[in-house]
Amino acid sequence: MSFDNEKSSRVTAIETMIKNYIPKEEGYQKTVFEAMNYSLMAGGKRLRPMLMEETFLLFDGKDRDFLDPFMAAIEMIHTYSLVHDDLPAMDNDEYRRGRKTTHVVYGEAMAILAGDGLLNYAFETAAKAFDAISDTDSENEQLIQYKRVAKAMKILSQKAGIYGMIGGQVVDVEEYDGIIDRDRLDFIYQLKTAALVEASMMIGAVLAGATETEVGQIEKIAGGIGLAFQIKDDILDVTSTEEVLGKPIHSDEKNQKTTYVSIMGINEAEKEVVKISEEAVRIYDALPYQNEYLRALILQLIYREK
Amino acid sequence: MSFDNEKSSRVTAIETMIKNYIPKEEGYQKTVFEAMNYSLMAGGKRLRPMLMEETFLLFDGKDRDFLDPFMAAIEMIHTYSLVHDDLPAMDNDEYRRGRKTTHVVYGEAMAILAGDGLLNYAFETAAKAFDAISDTDSENEQLIQYKRVAKAMKILSQKAGIYGMIGGQVVDVEEYDGIIDRDRLDFIYQLKTAALVEASMMIGAVLAGATETEVGQIEKIAGGIGLAFQIKDDILDVTSTEEVLGKPIHSDEKNQKTTYVSIMGINEAEKEVVKISEEAVRIYDALPYQNEYLRALILQLIYREK
Repeated sequence: MSFDNEKSSRVTAIETMIKNYIPKEEGYQKTVFEAMNYSLMAGGKRLRPMLMEETFLLFDGKDRDFLDPFMAAIEMIHTYSLVHDDLPAMDNDEYRRGRKTTHVVYGEAMAILAGDGLLNYAFETAAKAFDAISDTDSENEQLIQYKRVAKAMKILSQKAGIYGMIGGQVVDVEEYDGIIDRDRLDFIYQLKTAALVEASMMIGAVLAGATETEVGQIEKIAGGIGLAFQIKDDILDVTSTEEVLGKPIHSDEKNQKTTYVSIMGINEAEKEVVKISEEAVRIYDALPYQNEYLRALILQLIYREK
Repeated sequence: MSFDNEKSSRVTAIETMIKNYIPKEEGYQKTVFEAMNYSLMAGGKRLRPMLMEETFLLFDGKDRDFLDPFMAAIEMIHTYSLVHDDLPAMDNDEYRRGRKTTHVVYGEAMAILAGDGLLNYAFETAAKAFDAISDTDSENEQLIQYKRVAKAMKILSQKAGIYGMIGGQVVDVEEYDGIIDRDRLDFIYQLKTAALVEASMMIGAVLAGATETEVGQIEKIAGGIGLAFQIKDDILDVTSTEEVLGKPIHSDEKNQKTTYVSIMGINEAEKEVVKISEEAVRIYDALPYQNEYLRALILQLIYREK
């Protein structure tokens, strides 16, 4: 099977799995369930759950009952951040991936609550992993599982929160007030984009039983991927076409956004992507484990043309 | 010490404790920390952490290292719900407890992010309870603690979420579209108000080591308190004065809100409060444990005049 076919079959499997965790659209609060599911099932690359799963497999993880709730949870967190990001008070976007955004369809109040609902439900869903711990296992075995799930919960909440994704969004929202330098831009990219990539891969590793040192290496790899991915985004916004990208180009210039390209130019930005990526791949290749699909996925993310 | 003095010293102790968990106002994302702390430290009754603590003491709970993170977390969740509730797209309130609301001070985008930040940080803070489990304890003892904290995390996420508080808010937001009957109103009150009271008391019980049956009884007591509290709110909005209440009266009528009073009149609503309260107190008194302060607090909540 080609890489693209393999990827698309994985996306399908992830979406089928996530559907097991979404709320049934019934009851008095039906509308919020609909709004949550509308945004959660709006397509997308499913990159974060995919990276989590592949890292879990890299470390030879076996029991999917611990993994699935966290895969669903990370996608819920990613989705809520988009729903709130699109709100009139934030980016005021009416379309995302060719579909009307949640607040356009369900109204602003419901979009705020649907975002809150997705964020809260992410933790509710992740906590279901505790239910997969069997009372009939030995105390020692149960304790190992409790420690892994608790560690995964900690990573999820930290990387998604005010010292992670939300922290990055805050600075991004504020950035229009003045000139931002490289240090501030790195902070935004590392928190807004890379933190959730780090969470995805670290949680996959933790749930599979990776050592603390290994989880630290995965964090570095994921941080590099996230940062390179975001810089690549800056570059494609200038060098690509609307046809290839599937969204308007030159949007950063139009929105007067400071980017890697505006700070250092396209050539130097390209060099940064290569430098950061090569370092990430170097750490990855030094790991004594192999997952060819994950390696190909990482390379595709970094060297993508759209 | 009088009950009121005792209560006020407990509020002070709770606020001092919560301050240990709030983010330091430094770093690039400083503004969101300020906005979070502005709303979290805006006063308030601190009722939910207080009920959690007193239920913990009722069941003779000993180790506060497990309790404190959850007390802080439940107050963060309550606070985020107020911040988002006050937003222009929701209730559009400019003042709360005599202070300007978060979005008035920090802008709408920052208020949305501060609310998201508080919600996420609540789970991040609660997860710190796992750190209080000591590696040097016996495996059996550690396992007991992991089970308690995991159970508390589950309760927190469920009662705050789409089948709890958020679920109630959604129906409350939607209610203006039509006439609502008693069943729908009960749903709103049980979810919007009672669910978080249930979470508070249940978590206190769980962390203290209460049995499943006991936690079930606590859930009933708390549900009754929450519902009676909310119906009492409806009544006071009609029967009290602005001086006593410290906020405008007749606000429900002005906002065309369906309430217990509008559905069944003041007398019947009063009878409901008594009926629900007496049942809650009856279950409480049947428990083989005693906490005089908690009992007095429950009675004060139900029979309050403001």
